[in-house]
Amino acid sequence: MSKKFNVSTPSGFPEFTPAQEQVRQSWIRIISEVFEKNGFAPISTPLVEREENLLGKGGNPKEMYVLKRLWDEDGDKSHSGNALRFDQTVPLALYVARHFNDLTFPFRRSVIGPVFRGERAQKGRFRQFDQCDIDVIGNGTLSVLNDAQMPAIIIQIFKRLMPDQDFVVRINNRKVLLGFFASIGIAADKVKNALDIVDDLEKLSKEALLKNFEKEGFSSEQSDKILKFIAISGSNESILETLKTMSNDNELFQEGVSGLELVNSALNSMGIEEKYFQLDLRIARGLDYYTGTVFETNLIGYEGLGSICSGGRYEDLAKIFTKKSMPGVGISIGLTRLLSQVFEAGIVKAGKVSRTQMLIISADEKSLSKSLEIGQILRDGGYFAENYLEDKKLGKKFEYADKLKIPYVVLIGEKEMSKKIVQVRDLETGGRSEVEESQLVEYFGKIF
Amino acid sequence: MSKKFNVSTPSGFPEFTPAQEQVRQSWIRIISEVFEKNGFAPISTPLVEREENLLGKGGNPKEMYVLKRLWDEDGDKSHSGNALRFDQTVPLALYVARHFNDLTFPFRRSVIGPVFRGERAQKGRFRQFDQCDIDVIGNGTLSVLNDAQMPAIIIQIFKRLMPDQDFVVRINNRKVLLGFFASIGIAADKVKNALDIVDDLEKLSKEALLKNFEKEGFSSEQSDKILKFIAISGSNESILETLKTMSNDNELFQEGVSGLELVNSALNSMGIEEKYFQLDLRIARGLDYYTGTVFETNLIGYEGLGSICSGGRYEDLAKIFTKKSMPGVGISIGLTRLLSQVFEAGIVKAGKVSRTQMLIISADEKSLSKSLEIGQILRDGGYFAENYLEDKKLGKKFEYADKLKIPYVVLIGEKEMSKKIVQVRDLETGGRSEVEESQLVEYFGKIF
Repeated sequence: MSKKFNVSTPSGFPEFTPAQEQVRQSWIRIISEVFEKNGFAPISTPLVEREENLLGKGGNPKEMYVLKRLWDEDGDKSHSGNALRFDQTVPLALYVARHFNDLTFPFRRSVIGPVFRGERAQKGRFRQFDQCDIDVIGNGTLSVLNDAQMPAIIIQIFKRLMPDQDFVVRINNRKVLLGFFASIGIAADKVKNALDIVDDLEKLSKEALLKNFEKEGFSSEQSDKILKFIAISGSNESILETLKTMSNDNELFQEGVSGLELVNSALNSMGIEEKYFQLDLRIARGLDYYTGTVFETNLIGYEGLGSICSGGRYEDLAKIFTKKSMPGVGISIGLTRLLSQVFEAGIVKAGKVSRTQMLIISADEKSLSKSLEIGQILRDGGYFAENYLEDKKLGKKFEYADKLKIPYVVLIGEKEMSKKIVQVRDLETGGRSEVEESQLVEYFGKIF
Repeated sequence: MSKKFNVSTPSGFPEFTPAQEQVRQSWIRIISEVFEKNGFAPISTPLVEREENLLGKGGNPKEMYVLKRLWDEDGDKSHSGNALRFDQTVPLALYVARHFNDLTFPFRRSVIGPVFRGERAQKGRFRQFDQCDIDVIGNGTLSVLNDAQMPAIIIQIFKRLMPDQDFVVRINNRKVLLGFFASIGIAADKVKNALDIVDDLEKLSKEALLKNFEKEGFSSEQSDKILKFIAISGSNESILETLKTMSNDNELFQEGVSGLELVNSALNSMGIEEKYFQLDLRIARGLDYYTGTVFETNLIGYEGLGSICSGGRYEDLAKIFTKKSMPGVGISIGLTRLLSQVFEAGIVKAGKVSRTQMLIISADEKSLSKSLEIGQILRDGGYFAENYLEDKKLGKKFEYADKLKIPYVVLIGEKEMSKKIVQVRDLETGGRSEVEESQLVEYFGKIF
């Protein structure tokens, strides 16, 4: 070893511990299953797209990683002009543009995979991170009922990811906000600023907010109306009631209220408990992209983590790439960031480092062949059954199971072989059982 | 749209069709499940590693993609010197080097994910492709029994991936080859050349082979012995018998034969049918890396596709990164390439574009709420149940199910609601059933 290598991961490209990785894998299994159960088929697009396409849809050149071969002096230009994707939405827009005629609309797609952003290195900011997205894209039109499907899916997912942790999906409709602002005489070109101030509602004091409103040139009457409006709270029904009794005849406002009503009643039809979703007029999200229903999700008691799953309705997915009008609605889970947060906050604890349910150990060389046979039988029976294969002392073999937190050991020795039994050890309780070899698959069937 | 965008994928970064993607997803589910059932836990390392580490382990600068921000004039050096991984082995070596003290050995890891190679654009060559690998790494030593686990896993996987397609894992041991060559007087520095010629055995005529042997300075006696040796065939037992009766007392040769014997008998212990694995003295693989057992896998009748899953035993995983001696054995499936091949050869046909088992359709607006309720009940019951949500004519709704090849439609209208039933349509047979709403989950339980 003449050279000393720095084997650490590059800055901003962290990795999880083996036990944390198990949680990540199980979360990916759950998320993708819920996505697919609701009709969202996975689509994989390349991690690499044309630079100009990424730039055309808002890619930030300071954060976009372009590819270049380390040695590229052969003049092969086909390698240049490409960059790593920075989100899952631009690749979706490109995918829909390239495959438009082969797709059936509404087109439901899911994706779970890495995106890349060359951000400044700092805690909680990753340069590669997994983003789990679903979107449903209409051809020309798309029913607002699809908007209701999004919180329903968020709720299905988080109930399974963190069964002991309460959470709430907060729902608003940008049209309600935009219509309301118009109705109190705030000009269209000021709406974005007003919404930005509303976005800061939970971060700032009332005085600071009012000051910000004043700076924007809003009258104190307007500011009062805004604050009164965004203070509307209560049950979903009562919020809808209040909005309707406002008798605001702004068309956008009324469309937004109808949208919220439809989403609320659809969620009720699905039998989703009201504690999981809350209409909330303070949710605004970014103005440029979302045009209708918007969602955020918070962990109760950990609101400081920010929204753990957000999304909303947008007017046109692929405007610059095609002339077709394609409205859509989608949500996104920033998986890497969320996992880091829940591990750090202790909300989720990493445990086992593999899914192995039982380690098959031979006590001596003569029983080795039998142990291989039994391992295969258990695997064929559907279990995660690992054979210990090294020629070590028995203690070392058990130590391996202990270290990997494998719950059961199946032990076979000459004595057991002669009686056609195996010993089953429960490593958690210390319990021991003798089980007939032919009954082993059934035996574990009662446990797993 | 002032600018015309080229929305196609960059050269060498293809994507599958939606239906092909479904096959890819189901293959990934199967491969990862078999890996995990055998104790191989997934580990995800970043797609990006330090350039010098990749170069240190054989990275080809002409094919290695380094990252550079499109705009990087802020002097932030932390973004430079990194490149995309070109295989799954170097990241494993780095992972083991960085986490050595936290790992339990033998360390079994699986990985399924993309690697990147800036190769010349040509058919069947991808610049991004999925590689599915497992490796088991010992700390100092590693039992040859682990070598037997590899073909067992290959067999479990391909029986499930392509149930109607025969295949065979061909197994050899490099020590047998190296020992044999030494025993017929071929000097160590000529062994690589001899093996390279043997590697071409199936591509070249006997005459061309003999000419190549001659060019290397081998005597005709040596050449004859080589050809006679690599012609040894028959059942696994008989090949082992022949090797033993050769009474070759070269130590390496004997070690190799013992290795093959152990692998063969372990596979027999596991109850693996002999038709799935074949000792084959012609398998050599690359000399530089593999040192013991080697594997290749062929689809019977499609041998021209080459090996679809290969691997072997190596001496030391992470030599340049750590002083620890870490022997290992592993296999790799080039998933993207293999899928392209089996689709093109018609061995596997892509079908459905989602996993949706039933589409829930409301016949009129009054039954919409009920249809949402039923969809949720079916999903809670474990099904892949998609609600059709658009306000379209009934024919359009059925057309959607047809196009997506969804097998069943659950239809609800006012009439059905009043009778507390639903209509179930089997879109393949055209069959129609009336099912009580409360019995629907049980009804599909008999189908799926």
